[in-house]
Amino acid sequence: MHIIPPQSGAAFELKKGDILTIIDPMGQQVSDMVVFNREDPKEKLSAGKSMDFEESILLTKGNYLWSNRSQKMMEIREDTNGRNDFLLAPCSPETFEIMYDNPEYHPSCQENLYRNLRPYGIDVDDIPTAFNVFMNVQFDDKGKLKVLPPTSKPGDLVRFKAEMDLIVALTACSAEDSNGGTFKPIHYLITDENGMINQ
Amino acid sequence: MHIIPPQSGAAFELKKGDILTIIDPMGQQVSDMVVFNREDPKEKLSAGKSMDFEESILLTKGNYLWSNRSQKMMEIREDTNGRNDFLLAPCSPETFEIMYDNPEYHPSCQENLYRNLRPYGIDVDDIPTAFNVFMNVQFDDKGKLKVLPPTSKPGDLVRFKAEMDLIVALTACSAEDSNGGTFKPIHYLITDENGMINQ
Repeated sequence: MHIIPPQSGAAFELKKGDILTIIDPMGQQVSDMVVFNREDPKEKLSAGKSMDFEESILLTKGNYLWSNRSQKMMEIREDTNGRNDFLLAPCSPETFEIMYDNPEYHPSCQENLYRNLRPYGIDVDDIPTAFNVFMNVQFDDKGKLKVLPPTSKPGDLVRFKAEMDLIVALTACSAEDSNGGTFKPIHYLITDENGMINQ
Repeated sequence: MHIIPPQSGAAFELKKGDILTIIDPMGQQVSDMVVFNREDPKEKLSAGKSMDFEESILLTKGNYLWSNRSQKMMEIREDTNGRNDFLLAPCSPETFEIMYDNPEYHPSCQENLYRNLRPYGIDVDDIPTAFNVFMNVQFDDKGKLKVLPPTSKPGDLVRFKAEMDLIVALTACSAEDSNGGTFKPIHYLITDENGMINQ
């Protein structure tokens, strides 16, 4: 079991067929995920393609995450919480300046993603809109958005199958409003189809 | 007045302060728009940042379009139709294969964007989710998406002010389902604040 401490991140590789399980160990904690083709990181997760091909804003078991080249990158195999979306960009230093009116340094998912991705040659400008695991973004019929605390309970998990060799970056999200006001860790596990631990 | 023929595209530059007016001359025609910083095209339109900072899926008069570096790129100054969104990626060759089950060549917004952007050194992989002008994407409370014919009437327009020097690419969208089954032109106009034609 790998542990991402509160307000931090990690990056790692998956081989095609590997199973990635993202776990919210304490409940009410968001994890932002971005994904790149390991052979050519110019191919990466696309929120717009995923919502288009899956015909849904919310993605759960049975849905795929698609790349900017219209290829399947991951399949969602299991989702015990059932609320994840592709709408909002990872929180960034400017999120806290603009939306929280806080000009001081604040940890952010964007920083935690690109610092961990830098060894793979991936730059901050290359970070796409993340898949927001456990995030509870509510929308009304006029499209107005509101971020509520996650509905995830301790031990809730989302399980993904890699559809190609991948570079993955994950965070334990740093934004107060997205996580019920407290910062918790995120756990993850990499196994094969039979649940044998691969890494 | 510039004319984009049906199922084609155009790219051009705007100076900070320029006013871009996109017009649907016949009604029910979508135009996909992508925008890059003219000085450094690694800075570009971000759907995730725009929906985040504007707290809305649908963007109209008074909203801004934001970049991946959390800077304002455009302000929406006028919108006579009132339905534009940031959800779905530009239609691509794969859209027609996967969603329309059509393996034959079909013109697409993605091709019409990158072919026009190539002289600016912008590659197909660099095309972000477009701002979908006049597109009528409907969503229910479960997040399920449905594309209906645009509600735009002949002469409807959306007017943008450039917040920095920009490279802009625009299309007259090529997807049957997004345009009420027929393909019409898109017109655009570049003026200063006082309506004087600049280009």
